[in-house]
Amino acid sequence: MKAIGVTRDGDGPELLDVERPEPTEGEALVRTLRVGVDGTDHEVVAGSHGGYPEGSEYMILGHEAVGVVEDGNGSGLEAGQVVVPTVRRKPDGETNEYFRRGEPDMAPDGEYVERGIVGDHGFMSEYFTSPADNLVPIPEELAEYGMLVEPISIAEKANDHAFSTREPFEWRPESACVLGNGSLGLLTLWMLGREFERTYCVGRRSRPDPTIDVMDELGATYVDSRETPVDELPDAYEAVDYVFEATGYAPHAVQTVHALAPNGVGALLGIPGPWEFEIDGGAFHKDIVLHNKCLIGTVNSHVTHFEDAVDTLEAMPEWLLEELVTTIATPETVDAAFEDDDDQIKGVVEFAAL
Amino acid sequence: MKAIGVTRDGDGPELLDVERPEPTEGEALVRTLRVGVDGTDHEVVAGSHGGYPEGSEYMILGHEAVGVVEDGNGSGLEAGQVVVPTVRRKPDGETNEYFRRGEPDMAPDGEYVERGIVGDHGFMSEYFTSPADNLVPIPEELAEYGMLVEPISIAEKANDHAFSTREPFEWRPESACVLGNGSLGLLTLWMLGREFERTYCVGRRSRPDPTIDVMDELGATYVDSRETPVDELPDAYEAVDYVFEATGYAPHAVQTVHALAPNGVGALLGIPGPWEFEIDGGAFHKDIVLHNKCLIGTVNSHVTHFEDAVDTLEAMPEWLLEELVTTIATPETVDAAFEDDDDQIKGVVEFAAL
Repeated sequence: MKAIGVTRDGDGPELLDVERPEPTEGEALVRTLRVGVDGTDHEVVAGSHGGYPEGSEYMILGHEAVGVVEDGNGSGLEAGQVVVPTVRRKPDGETNEYFRRGEPDMAPDGEYVERGIVGDHGFMSEYFTSPADNLVPIPEELAEYGMLVEPISIAEKANDHAFSTREPFEWRPESACVLGNGSLGLLTLWMLGREFERTYCVGRRSRPDPTIDVMDELGATYVDSRETPVDELPDAYEAVDYVFEATGYAPHAVQTVHALAPNGVGALLGIPGPWEFEIDGGAFHKDIVLHNKCLIGTVNSHVTHFEDAVDTLEAMPEWLLEELVTTIATPETVDAAFEDDDDQIKGVVEFAAL
Repeated sequence: MKAIGVTRDGDGPELLDVERPEPTEGEALVRTLRVGVDGTDHEVVAGSHGGYPEGSEYMILGHEAVGVVEDGNGSGLEAGQVVVPTVRRKPDGETNEYFRRGEPDMAPDGEYVERGIVGDHGFMSEYFTSPADNLVPIPEELAEYGMLVEPISIAEKANDHAFSTREPFEWRPESACVLGNGSLGLLTLWMLGREFERTYCVGRRSRPDPTIDVMDELGATYVDSRETPVDELPDAYEAVDYVFEATGYAPHAVQTVHALAPNGVGALLGIPGPWEFEIDGGAFHKDIVLHNKCLIGTVNSHVTHFEDAVDTLEAMPEWLLEELVTTIATPETVDAAFEDDDDQIKGVVEFAAL
């Protein structure tokens, strides 16, 4: 079958011909519909994040997928059910306390593999198999945009964890700022627009730009970080109650704290490489303490976040989904889905239609 | 009446002769028993934190107090009731949403004054008045150590807020580390010893030392940060699930994150001044994200934290309280309570006995 993967000798995503997998006990065979491409995929392709399955000369890419069950294989799923796979799996099939509790997203290094990212093949192939426990059923009418469930689930987890930190007191937030104008940032911007009176989104682009158009349509304020660094938000606009960091630009961790209003919380999701620079560590420490601020990191997501994400996707307006999905490539034209210019928001590889 | 305060021209705590205050409607008059001295008092004396009441040439010190109601004044408190005052008050008596909700500890700058710290007189005087709402009744048998309720309440709030951040998942913490061997650090070390299997306490002292003796008696491991910087805890001992930062040493904010085990949380309470230095901002940001870590700041506390602190104080062993209170001075010998050498843990000024 056709698959898109990286090889140890290659220098980008390639169309591979690999054997179609057979489902084992408890697994279903899924016919892939669409697979999205995100920043993590670009890092995997560049070799700066993740790693190959043990002993394999290639890794199939893709962790944002939607498919239809081809063979339920007695796993509890029926053929024809549209499903979205979660990403983390047991290393070598061996379980541990995190998988037992249904919280693989909280497992530390070494206690998980991630399909299409680290140690296991992804979903960017005509078929894939998965334990039925890791396949979240979604309504058929959401199939077209089902590959967005995984990134939305990432935001669901981050928001859930971040807002929980404010539970011990009466938090009355009004404003939120998303750092990053990629697809995750814009999906989250819409989500936050439902809960916050005022939203901001930070990018490094000039108009005309399709991501700034989306911000405009969402009623959010675009902040150009080339003119207004994140820690200058309070002076230029307002100190915000919530910051959602989705760029992985290392200085944002400290800048996020200074962008927050008293009692605010910042969620970090981006993953930077090493970068040494100077900060005012005293001001950083003091600002966190005297204003009851919080900085929280979150990675990955688990089934309940996927379920919440299905509800969120269902509520999203069609125009937004259409504007976000900028490229639908085929396995033969896959490079178009991996293009990363300013016109691209979300590239998708389509293997089949329902 | 006698009071201990600082004056704009002075260079340390002075014995002042000031007018005894009269309770207004809703206020009680309290006869002061004991008032503790902490790091914040030293900062106020040094002029690096806080500020004088408007228009006053002096400020009475002290925010860790215990007293006995002298005149209930129709406020709902009876004469003879032992009470501990909370610290924050309405600025100019004008309320706001934080005071209305009983959460003055969450009020931003300008929406509160703090008795003995910023903008209002403290409790280090023979008598003080306070709204009865800000006086927490405690059992008479706790009167001797009642001045410890306020610092314990600070730890109650910090632990409450920090542990709340781990509510969205099943957190199974085993180890905790307190940064700082002052009285707040040691009180917290005892508290954490009830919940964590293994505790550590970081200081910069050599044996023999009275604070290290307390750690030994509590079964905690002493970590000398001159040999083992906080971010080297994982290599030298273990990555810990909880860090409680009570020194205000600015590099601790970043080091705390690296000292944490995956899914761990660090609470910051110390208040450093400005200090620029270099960090690996990429490693800091990435460590927070990939390991679901959290850094939370908390300041001050409110009535329910004081109530929890009363229960905690009641459960503390007598030997610990005796070892922590190293000096009991009188208003005439007050300098002894403000001495800050290695033999001092908690200095106290005693105005009267029950």
